[in-house]
Amino acid sequence: MSARQPARGALSRILDSIVESGRAILKGRRDASDRFASVPELMAMRCRELVDHRGEASGLALAREILDVYENLSGEGRDAFFDMLHRDFSTDPSLVLAAAERYGTDRDFNALEALRRAIESPCQKLFRRLNMAPGGTSLLVAMRGHLLTRLYANPQLSAIESDLRHLLIAWFNRGFLDLQRINWDASARVLEKIIEYEAVHEINGWDDLRNRLNQDRRLFAFFHPAMPYDPIIFVEIALGQGSASSIAPLIQTDRPELEAASQDTATFYSISNCHKGLKGISFGNFLIKQVAADLSAEMPGIKRFETLSPVPGFRGWLECTLASNAEAHVLKDELLAVQEILPQDGSLETTDDALRSDVLKLCAHYLIEEKQAGFPLDPVARFHLGNGASLDFIHWRADTSDLGMKRSLGIMVNYLYEDAQIEKNHETYFAEGRVVASNGVRKLARV
Amino acid sequence: MSARQPARGALSRILDSIVESGRAILKGRRDASDRFASVPELMAMRCRELVDHRGEASGLALAREILDVYENLSGEGRDAFFDMLHRDFSTDPSLVLAAAERYGTDRDFNALEALRRAIESPCQKLFRRLNMAPGGTSLLVAMRGHLLTRLYANPQLSAIESDLRHLLIAWFNRGFLDLQRINWDASARVLEKIIEYEAVHEINGWDDLRNRLNQDRRLFAFFHPAMPYDPIIFVEIALGQGSASSIAPLIQTDRPELEAASQDTATFYSISNCHKGLKGISFGNFLIKQVAADLSAEMPGIKRFETLSPVPGFRGWLECTLASNAEAHVLKDELLAVQEILPQDGSLETTDDALRSDVLKLCAHYLIEEKQAGFPLDPVARFHLGNGASLDFIHWRADTSDLGMKRSLGIMVNYLYEDAQIEKNHETYFAEGRVVASNGVRKLARV
Amino acid sequence: MSARQPARGALSRILDSIVESGRAILKGRRDASDRFASVPELMAMRCRELVDHRGEASGLALAREILDVYENLSGEGRDAFFDMLHRDFSTDPSLVLAAAERYGTDRDFNALEALRRAIESPCQKLFRRLNMAPGGTSLLVAMRGHLLTRLYANPQLSAIESDLRHLLIAWFNRGFLDLQRINWDASARVLEKIIEYEAVHEINGWDDLRNRLNQDRRLFAFFHPAMPYDPIIFVEIALGQGSASSIAPLIQTDRPELEAASQDTATFYSISNCHKGLKGISFGNFLIKQVAADLSAEMPGIKRFETLSPVPGFRGWLECTLASNAEAHVLKDELLAVQEILPQDGSLETTDDALRSDVLKLCAHYLIEEKQAGFPLDPVARFHLGNGASLDFIHWRADTSDLGMKRSLGIMVNYLYEDAQIEKNHETYFAEGRVVASNGVRKLARV
Amino acid sequence: MSARQPARGALSRILDSIVESGRAILKGRRDASDRFASVPELMAMRCRELVDHRGEASGLALAREILDVYENLSGEGRDAFFDMLHRDFSTDPSLVLAAAERYGTDRDFNALEALRRAIESPCQKLFRRLNMAPGGTSLLVAMRGHLLTRLYANPQLSAIESDLRHLLIAWFNRGFLDLQRINWDASARVLEKIIEYEAVHEINGWDDLRNRLNQDRRLFAFFHPAMPYDPIIFVEIALGQGSASSIAPLIQTDRPELEAASQDTATFYSISNCHKGLKGISFGNFLIKQVAADLSAEMPGIKRFETLSPVPGFRGWLECTLASNAEAHVLKDELLAVQEILPQDGSLETTDDALRSDVLKLCAHYLIEEKQAGFPLDPVARFHLGNGASLDFIHWRADTSDLGMKRSLGIMVNYLYEDAQIEKNHETYFAEGRVVASNGVRKLARV
Repeated sequence: MSARQPARGALSRILDSIVESGRAILKGRRDASDRFASVPELMAMRCRELVDHRGEASGLALAREILDVYENLSGEGRDAFFDMLHRDFSTDPSLVLAAAERYGTDRDFNALEALRRAIESPCQKLFRRLNMAPGGTSLLVAMRGHLLTRLYANPQLSAIESDLRHLLIAWFNRGFLDLQRINWDASARVLEKIIEYEAVHEINGWDDLRNRLNQDRRLFAFFHPAMPYDPIIFVEIALGQGSASSIAPLIQTDRPELEAASQDTATFYSISNCHKGLKGISFGNFLIKQVAADLSAEMPGIKRFETLSPVPGFRGWLECTLASNAEAHVLKDELLAVQEILPQDGSLETTDDALRSDVLKLCAHYLIEEKQAGFPLDPVARFHLGNGASLDFIHWRADTSDLGMKRSLGIMVNYLYEDAQIEKNHETYFAEGRVVASNGVRKLARV
Repeated sequence: MSARQPARGALSRILDSIVESGRAILKGRRDASDRFASVPELMAMRCRELVDHRGEASGLALAREILDVYENLSGEGRDAFFDMLHRDFSTDPSLVLAAAERYGTDRDFNALEALRRAIESPCQKLFRRLNMAPGGTSLLVAMRGHLLTRLYANPQLSAIESDLRHLLIAWFNRGFLDLQRINWDASARVLEKIIEYEAVHEINGWDDLRNRLNQDRRLFAFFHPAMPYDPIIFVEIALGQGSASSIAPLIQTDRPELEAASQDTATFYSISNCHKGLKGISFGNFLIKQVAADLSAEMPGIKRFETLSPVPGFRGWLECTLASNAEAHVLKDELLAVQEILPQDGSLETTDDALRSDVLKLCAHYLIEEKQAGFPLDPVARFHLGNGASLDFIHWRADTSDLGMKRSLGIMVNYLYEDAQIEKNHETYFAEGRVVASNGVRKLARV
Repeated sequence: MSARQPARGALSRILDSIVESGRAILKGRRDASDRFASVPELMAMRCRELVDHRGEASGLALAREILDVYENLSGEGRDAFFDMLHRDFSTDPSLVLAAAERYGTDRDFNALEALRRAIESPCQKLFRRLNMAPGGTSLLVAMRGHLLTRLYANPQLSAIESDLRHLLIAWFNRGFLDLQRINWDASARVLEKIIEYEAVHEINGWDDLRNRLNQDRRLFAFFHPAMPYDPIIFVEIALGQGSASSIAPLIQTDRPELEAASQDTATFYSISNCHKGLKGISFGNFLIKQVAADLSAEMPGIKRFETLSPVPGFRGWLECTLASNAEAHVLKDELLAVQEILPQDGSLETTDDALRSDVLKLCAHYLIEEKQAGFPLDPVARFHLGNGASLDFIHWRADTSDLGMKRSLGIMVNYLYEDAQIEKNHETYFAEGRVVASNGVRKLARV
Repeated sequence: MSARQPARGALSRILDSIVESGRAILKGRRDASDRFASVPELMAMRCRELVDHRGEASGLALAREILDVYENLSGEGRDAFFDMLHRDFSTDPSLVLAAAERYGTDRDFNALEALRRAIESPCQKLFRRLNMAPGGTSLLVAMRGHLLTRLYANPQLSAIESDLRHLLIAWFNRGFLDLQRINWDASARVLEKIIEYEAVHEINGWDDLRNRLNQDRRLFAFFHPAMPYDPIIFVEIALGQGSASSIAPLIQTDRPELEAASQDTATFYSISNCHKGLKGISFGNFLIKQVAADLSAEMPGIKRFETLSPVPGFRGWLECTLASNAEAHVLKDELLAVQEILPQDGSLETTDDALRSDVLKLCAHYLIEEKQAGFPLDPVARFHLGNGASLDFIHWRADTSDLGMKRSLGIMVNYLYEDAQIEKNHETYFAEGRVVASNGVRKLARV
C-alpha cells in the first residue's frame, strides 16, 4: 500500500519506537521522589538529566517528555519554566570572568575557546538536545515565540531568548530552505496552515483558499526540512493585465478569469510570516526574488513584477503630526485641510478631489521624506525599498476594509521589482538612505 | 515528463538562475584592478565583499564564485586561502578584550551579548553566507576536511577550524538527519558514493555492491537534507543464523542465501563515516540503535544484534609492549611465546593451539584491561562499549586480509547490543570505566 | 523549486504542448466547409478523422478536441453524439455475417481472427485513441456513466456501451490499481473528491472530513494510474473497542478518542463507488480484504473486522409483502403486528419491546430466507455474503436518519470478515446459496 | 525511516501477504491426487481452478503460483504449457458456430454479444486473472515473447498469442505510459536494465553507461505503471554542434564535452525496444516526438532533431541483387563495380573514391526506390519515414563495427525530424508511398 506521505513520517515512526523504549527505561530508573515533585521541579530535574545524560534512547525519550510537558503548560507554567531555565541553565558570570581574565593573559586559541565555552550557556546544550526528538524543531520555534512575548516584562529572559535565536539562525540558514509552489494538489495539512497563517488579507475557509489557488493566482512558500507540513513564509501573487490599483478585484471570489496569454503583470499582494518564533530571521526578500525568477522562467509573458502593499504607518504618523503642530510642517496647507475632515469622516468617503490630492501628497511625503535613523518610517516601505524595489504608484481608496482604513487611510502602493535595477536601488538605498521613486510619486511628494 | 529526481534538483535550477543573474551584476561592477589581482587577492576581495554585502542575487553569485574557485584550488592554493582567512577574518583580540572588560564592569545581558559578538569571528559570517549558495553545505564539509589535515602543521588555523566545526555541529544536529535503507532500487549516484566511502571491507565495483544489497543483507545510511545524494554515515548488516565468527563468509559474493524465516541474527559488519570534514560530529551510536529498532519492527525473528569488528589497536599495542619490557607484564609467558613466533610468521598461520590461546588471552586482556584516561585503548572498543554494547566473543583468524593481519592479527570480536542492557552497560562504562564482557571473554582475560 | 505534485503533471505539460502543435496543424488543414457544419456534423467528421488518421501530434490534438467538445455538450448534445456513434461507428452486420460464413467454411485461425475483427466496432478504435489524450481515461469513464443512464430509453446504444465496458474492464484490471491510505496529509484535490463521492453517510464539509480522518479512523482508496487525483472506490473504517451497534457514534464529530492500545475492532461503515461509469467493474470485495490485511499488519491488536451496514431492501420488501398477502406468510403474526403500527409511526419510535422483536425477526428472515435466483434479495447482503463474510448481528434503531428509516427501518447489521472462514463461507454461499449467519441471527430467523 | 522506493513496493507487500494467506487456503484444499500429478497436469488443474474460481485471496495465490511455476519452466516445460493452453483454453469452434448461426437469424445486440463471448477464449480470462497477481503484467509480457518464438514451428499457438496480444494492446495503451528522463540519479535497478536492453550500440558496463548519461547526452524511456523499474522502450540522444556523420565520436568515452550554449543539434543515435513480448505494439514514433518536444522546451538552442541510423537491410539487398542479375538493374555499372570488390574486401577499406560513390548511389537508390507493397524495403527507413521524418544525409564509413559492416556496409544515415514538415511528410509517405529526401540524397539516387 502506498501512502501520500513524505518519507519523514516513516522516520518519525522509528524515532517514536526508540522514544517509547526509552520511556520504559526512564520509568524504571525513577524513584519515589518523583511522585512528590511539582511540575516545575520535575521539569528542572528532567532538563538537568537531559543535559548531563549520554544515553541515546533515554535521551530522546527525555527530550520528548520535556517537550510533551511543555506543550501542555499554561501561561503560568511557561513563566515558571522560563524562570527555571534562567535560574538553572544560564551562563555563569564567574566562569565568564575567569575565562576572560585568562584570555587577557594568554591571548591564545585555547583561552579563546575556553571563553567561548564559558559564554555558551547550558541552555544551548539543552535546546540542541531537545531538537533531536521528533517534532523538536517545531516546538523550539514556538518556544521562542512564547519567549518574545515575555521579554518586555521579563528582560532577564533576554539571554535565554538570545541562546535560542542563535540556534534558530544557524538551523534556518537559507541554504536549507526549500521553495515550493502550493496549489490545490497540495496536502490539506499544509493548506490548513495557509488559511491559519494568512496575515494580510484573511482567507475565509476552503472555498476562498481554492479561489486564491486558481490558474491566475500563485502561492509560493519556503519550507524547512524538519517541518515539512508547516510553511515558514509564503507569498500570494495575482497574475493580471497591467498594474493592480486596488485589492478588492484581486481577492474577490467571482472574478472573471484572464487567459494566460494576456497576463503580463505579477502582483505580490500578500506576504505572511508564519511563525512568531522566527521573528528577525528574515527570508522575505529572498522569497520575492526567487519567486520572480521562477515565474519569469515559467511564464515569459510576465514583464512586470510589483507589489500591492499597504502603508501601515501612514495614519498613525498623520494623526501624530496633526496632534503635534501641523502649522510648522512643510505641508501645512494639506495637513490643515485633512485635519478638518478626518475626525468627522474617518473613511474619507466624502472627500472631494482637492482633499484627495492633499492626502496623496502627504502620503508620498511620508513615504519618501519621513525617516528614522536615515531610513523610511514606514515598515513595509523599509522592507521593499531595502530589497531594491522602487516606489512606483500610490493608489487612492485601494483598500477600504476596516484595517485598510484604520492604518493606511485606504491607500495602497505598488513597489516595483525591476531585475535590472534591484541591485542599484538596493545600494542607493543603503548607501544614501535615498528612496528610489517614480517621477509621478516624486512629483506628488514635491512641496 | 516525470523525472526520478528529488525536488531539490528543481530548487537548485532556480538558484542557479539567480546566481547567473548575480554574476552579470558582479561583472558590471568590477573594475580594471581585478585584472591585475592574484587569485589569493581576488579571493580575499570576494570574501570581504560577501561578508559586507547585502544584495541577495549578487550575494549568492559571490558565494558560488568563491566556492567554485575554492573547488579548483591546489594544495598550495588552499594553504594560501586558509592563511588569508586566518589573517583577514579572525576574531580581533582587542575587541574581545574590550568587550571582556566591559562585561567585567557591567555584568549585564548587553555586555554579554557584546562579548559574544566580539568572539564570533567574521569567518563565521562568511561560512554562513557561503552555505546559502547551491552546494554550499557540501563544500564547507569538504573544507573542514582540508583544514583538519593542516592543523598539526598549522596550529594557528585552529580558530578557523573551530568556527567551522561549531557551525557544522549546529547544522548536522541529529534532528535534521534522515535514516534511509539503501538497496538496489537506490539512485546510482548514491550507490557510487557507497562504493567510494566503504572504509572497512572494500567493495569491488558494482557486482560486489549488488551482492552487499542482497535479500539477506541490509545497508542503512543517514542523509542530511542539503546533501540528498551523499550519505553521512552508513552501516552494513548481514542477516544470518547464529553469531558470525569470521568476515569472509559475510562478504563473499557466491554465498548460499538463507531463507528469511531462518534468519535470527543481524551482524553489523561495517560502519563507514563518509566525510572527514564531519570528524568528531558523531552519529554512529545513534545509527546502530535506530537501525536495530527498524530491523526489529520489520523482522521480529531477528533476536540477536551484534557486530563483527576488528581490534585495530591490538597489534600496535602488542608490538609496543614486546619492544618495551615483556618480562614485566602480568602476561609475561604469553608475551614471550608470541615474541618468538611473531617476527617469523606475521600471519600466524603456523601457530599451534597453545600459541593461539596465548594470543587470544593477550587480546582479551588488551580489550578489557588496557586503558587510557580510564577508558579502553582500542578505538572500536571505546565506540561500541560507550554505546552500551558488551564484549561477547573473540574470534581467531576471523579476518586474514592484509589489513586484518596488520592491525588486528586476524582477530575479530562480536560486540553485543542487547536492548534491555544497553542503558545499564552505558552507565557502568561511563561511571566506572568498566568493560562489560561475557563470561567467556572475562575468563580469557583472567591472568 | 519543488512542487508537491505527482510526476504525471509534468507529462501532461509535454502532452499539452504536443496537442497544441497538433492544433495548429489541424487548423491549417481544415477548409471552409467546417464553418457551416453543425456541432454533431463536426464531431462526426472529427471522430472519423481520428479513426482514419495516423499522425501522432494531430492525432492527440484531434482526440483532445473531441473530448473538449464532448465535455461541454448538453444532454441533447450527448444524445446526438451517441446517436452518431451508433450510426457511424457500429459493427457492420454484413461484415460479421460474411466473416461468420467464412469461419463456418474454413474453421481456422485466420477466419476466426477475421470474425473477431469484423465484430470489433470502429467505436472501439475511436475509444482507444481518445484514451491516448491527456485526461482521456477520465472522460471515457464519465462517458460510460452518461451512456448507462440512456440505455433503458435507448436500447440501441447497448452495443456502444458494451464496447466501452470491454475496454474499461481491460484497463481497470485490478493488477493496475494502487491502494492508498488517505489521511489529512493527502492532496486537497483528492479530499475534495472524497467529500463529493461519499454515498452512504454524507460528509458535511472539510471539518467533518477531518473528523473522518482522525487517529481512530481510516480511509483507504483504490486509484488508477491514469487518474491519480480521482479515487475509484473507497472505504471508511472506525477503530473501536467491541462491535459497533449504531452509526451515530461512529460519525459524530465530538466523540471521545479511544487510545490505540484499546482498539480491537475495525468497523467498515461506508463503501463508496466513485464513478457511475465503472458500474459492474467491481473492486469492493478486493478492497475490503486488502485493507483488512493491511490493518492487521499495522495494528496486531485489531482482532475483529466487521461492517456496519444498512439493509436497504428491507422496508421495500416489508411493505410489498404487507400489501400482497401478509396472512399467507410464515411470519404472519409478526407481519400483522407491524402492519398496524407502520403507517402511523413510520419512525417506529413508539414501538414497544414486543413489536421490536417482531421487526427484527422479519428482518432476519428477510436477510436469510428471501431470495431471488437462489441468492438473497438484499443487495448489500449479496455483496458481503458473496465476499465470504457472515451475518453476525442485527441492530435495532442503529440508523435513525431519514434515509436509514426510509430504507432499512433504522436497522443496521454487522457482516463479519473472519480470515479463516472467508473462503469456506464464500464457497458455501455460491455452491448452496446458503447464508452463513451467527447462532443469534439464525435463532431470530427461525419461525 | 524513509525509503528510496516507489509506493508500489508497499502495495506488493500487502498483496504478498494476501497471496500468502491464500496459499494456506489452497494447501488445505488440495488432496492427495496432487501428489501424483505431473507438472503439466498440475498447471492444467491450477489454471482451470483460477478461471473457475471466485475467491479473491486464493485467486491471487493461485495466479502467483501459476506464474512462479511458469517462471521456472524449461523450454520443454513451456512447450507443454502452451500446448495445454491450446488444448484446454482455446475458443470452442462449435460454440462460435452456434452463436454465429443465431446472429445470422436474430441480428440483434444480444446475439452479437453472445457471438463475441463465444469467440473470447477461456485463455483471455486466464490471462486477465494472472495479471492481477503481483508481477503478473511483467510475466505475461515475457510469456508473449516466448510464444512469438514458437509461432513459426507451432502455428496452432497463433490463437493463444492473438489473445495475449489483444490484452497487451489494451493494457499498454499510450495513455498509460509515462515518459521519464533517465540520468545518473536514477535507480540502479533501472540502469541495469538499460545496460541489458541496449540493442544498437552495446553499453560496456557501468562506466560506459555513465558516459551515456553525461551532461551532453540524454536518455528517455517509457514506463508502464505496472513495471516501474523496467523500461518499455528508450532512446539515446547526443547533443552536439551540427549534424553527426559517424557513430564513434558519439559513444566514445573520453570525448571532449561541448558547453551547453554551443549545442544546436540533438542526434537520436539509438532506440531500443526492451521486450520481445511487446513486439508490434509500437511506441517508438510517439517517443521520438515527445522527447523532441521536451528537449525543445528545455533547450531552446537545439534547432535540429535528427537520427543517426543504420541501413540494416542494405547489404542483404545488395548481395541478393548481385546474386540474381546485376546486369538487368538500372544501376548496372555501379553494381558490377561493387561485385568485383565486395567478396575480397568486405570491409571496403581499400575502396577508392569512385567505388565509394557507387556504393552511396546504390544505398540512396535502395532507400528511396526499393519497395515492397509500396513502402521502402529497409525497416529503419520505414519506421522513420512513416513517422514523418525525411531522409537527409547518407554517410560513408560511419559505423565500421562488425555489425555495422555486416548489415549496412558501414553506412549510416540521418533522418531529419522537422516539426513543421512532419505531418506533411507523413501524409505524403502514406498517401503516395513517396520517400521525402533532401536534394543531396535525391541527386545521389538519380540514375
